[in-house]
Amino acid sequence: MSSAVSPLAPPDVPEMPAIAGVKLATAAAGIRYNGRTDVLLAVMDQGTTVAGVFTKSKCPSAPVEWCRAKLKAGKARALVVNSGNANAFTGKTGRQSTALTASIAAKAAACSPNEVFLASTGVIGEPLDANKFDGVLGGLAETAEPGEWMSAAKAIMTTDTFPKVATATVKLGKAKVTINGVAKGAGMIMPDMATMLSFVFTDAPISATALQSLLKGGVEDTFNAVTVDGDTSTSDTLLAFATGAAAVNGAPKISRASDPRLKAFTKALHAVLANLSEQVARDGEGARKLVEIIVEGAVSKASARKIAMSVANSPLVKTAIAGEDANWGRVVMAVGKAGEPADRDKLSIAFNGIQVAKRGARDPSYDEAEVSSAMKQPKIQIKISLGLGKGRDRVLTCDLTKEYVMINGDYRS
Amino acid sequence: MSSAVSPLAPPDVPEMPAIAGVKLATAAAGIRYNGRTDVLLAVMDQGTTVAGVFTKSKCPSAPVEWCRAKLKAGKARALVVNSGNANAFTGKTGRQSTALTASIAAKAAACSPNEVFLASTGVIGEPLDANKFDGVLGGLAETAEPGEWMSAAKAIMTTDTFPKVATATVKLGKAKVTINGVAKGAGMIMPDMATMLSFVFTDAPISATALQSLLKGGVEDTFNAVTVDGDTSTSDTLLAFATGAAAVNGAPKISRASDPRLKAFTKALHAVLANLSEQVARDGEGARKLVEIIVEGAVSKASARKIAMSVANSPLVKTAIAGEDANWGRVVMAVGKAGEPADRDKLSIAFNGIQVAKRGARDPSYDEAEVSSAMKQPKIQIKISLGLGKGRDRVLTCDLTKEYVMINGDYRS
Repeated sequence: MSSAVSPLAPPDVPEMPAIAGVKLATAAAGIRYNGRTDVLLAVMDQGTTVAGVFTKSKCPSAPVEWCRAKLKAGKARALVVNSGNANAFTGKTGRQSTALTASIAAKAAACSPNEVFLASTGVIGEPLDANKFDGVLGGLAETAEPGEWMSAAKAIMTTDTFPKVATATVKLGKAKVTINGVAKGAGMIMPDMATMLSFVFTDAPISATALQSLLKGGVEDTFNAVTVDGDTSTSDTLLAFATGAAAVNGAPKISRASDPRLKAFTKALHAVLANLSEQVARDGEGARKLVEIIVEGAVSKASARKIAMSVANSPLVKTAIAGEDANWGRVVMAVGKAGEPADRDKLSIAFNGIQVAKRGARDPSYDEAEVSSAMKQPKIQIKISLGLGKGRDRVLTCDLTKEYVMINGDYRS
Repeated sequence: MSSAVSPLAPPDVPEMPAIAGVKLATAAAGIRYNGRTDVLLAVMDQGTTVAGVFTKSKCPSAPVEWCRAKLKAGKARALVVNSGNANAFTGKTGRQSTALTASIAAKAAACSPNEVFLASTGVIGEPLDANKFDGVLGGLAETAEPGEWMSAAKAIMTTDTFPKVATATVKLGKAKVTINGVAKGAGMIMPDMATMLSFVFTDAPISATALQSLLKGGVEDTFNAVTVDGDTSTSDTLLAFATGAAAVNGAPKISRASDPRLKAFTKALHAVLANLSEQVARDGEGARKLVEIIVEGAVSKASARKIAMSVANSPLVKTAIAGEDANWGRVVMAVGKAGEPADRDKLSIAFNGIQVAKRGARDPSYDEAEVSSAMKQPKIQIKISLGLGKGRDRVLTCDLTKEYVMINGDYRS
């Protein structure tokens, strides 16, 4: 476990307002960690809709399979998240464990198990004893309160060094609606989708199908554009819940994602997702630099994404940044290995705005001292211009440090 | 630069016999390193055929482009290799540099520049001053000798901690023929093909087209099945030279790769390539463990390869092995992210012969102490059984240590 907070943690943590229709509570159920909370229960009012996006892993966790199945009805009343054990690769036991957890939560929240959503994060392959939730969730449902957002963000952390929250307030029709989000994630972070758990709540009255469409659209350039180590978790889960409570203040009921009244809401939702996903990159295990890769002039956006990911996941690029070395030759290497259209003799590269390579060779004005000094910044932008077309994309990652190796060599034992 | 020799270096270095028709010499041209050799000249007799396999990078180095163009004629008289500068991403200067080097070498070896092959390894993006070869190659051609194999292997090293050589002697017809190989490579190692330079020489009389076919066939399960960090170099080059000198001893002239008389030769060539490529994995930057990934029961060999590579390139799997942690959950994760057919509930995993996961869950007989003790071995075998089909593959890699990060954070500066 890491102890020190990442130097890249956002300096300001926003005040998280309450969201009408959502109550939160956390507890220490002793699943793996001692002396800290490891269970979150969110209880939502009747009428809450739900949408979700999950890992594309061929070996998904039991909670991911549970959520996928329950998502079809689009209704949610409770969310249970635990840290310390991923309940992944746990076979039949894992499925029994999700069913038992949902049934305990349903009793606590007075709803159907089909309205309970689950997420687990932590070690893979160890059976999760759901009996630990018995006696815990009932008490949590009674004490749940609207304001416990920071506690919620803390309870879901694993190797995270800081809790991740974001909020936005926006007009829907003439009513004010709020979007709150929490996230966890630090390693095993790679699309699709960026590994982590994230839960977004709003009081806007939005149908499940519209919410699903908004969420899918929002994830592409946020969570799916973040990578820490190229490793995709078995447990990636992003859930969005809309209680609809703002309808009493006059917020219009939205049934289609294409509704023009959603414009500001959609933008705000994207901002919350972007904020949370950037925090995941900022908390990348062992990270000392936030790295933004911009690829432009590619033959398409998809091609730009592949090239950006090839650079973002290159151990040689990431270790060079950790060493504050403007080793742009490794960027050339990573562009070359992406397998996407690229013409060496049109390729240009800039580090933090300083042109280092131009049209296939070192920039004539290249000044090692100038660019070395720029590499000392906590944020490094690598801009790659391919000169082929109009495809553009942006990906966030972090550097690869000795601390990453130490954290992940010692994590389980 | 690393100083200590990898603990995984082969304990025994073979005696390298001379190959009739090949002479070698090395020199310190001061390209980047001080106090060590950095140029190799190999001079081959008239009638030598040549074959080659190169990086698939979209940003290949100037020497790679040079070799590709010259390979068509299939004739070779000289090979010039330098370490310290890759002559990659050097634009027009790079092309001028290869032409100048070839012309200097052609004069030294009394042949056409079109019969000169070139390879460079080292930093990307810095112009290579080919004038440094002037005055050097002429002397080397005069002093070249048949026995300088270890010197040759040393002159082409960059971050390598030990020189890599392999040899085999085999019957072709009734004559004895020899195959010698040298290789370098430690980082930026990933197919296609595993990053490195490797040069194989034989006195067997084999046509260029047959040699090309043998080489392509041999590389698939050797150099292309090795990865250190998933990073593909701009400079990967494997060249094979056949002098034909064994014809005077009665070795038959071979014009087609399908010639049945080649059976023993083909096997020996594969053994030399396998030996050299395993040495590359053993010298992976910072490596403390040689890791063999075996995937069986996949839907095809190609699918097994993709899954094996996903595991071999996973930073989380590699750091766990560095930490001697039998964290098989991360193997599940890496199988899941490969995007290939896999059924969680049929998946089984063994570490060094000890079953840890069986049909989608922890093996009932799992004993943490037993498997932890096995993880202390210098060689770790991870066997993954998918239970879907008959596809099988094997990939070699190494662990990811703090030393890898240190080596690559400090390499250039």
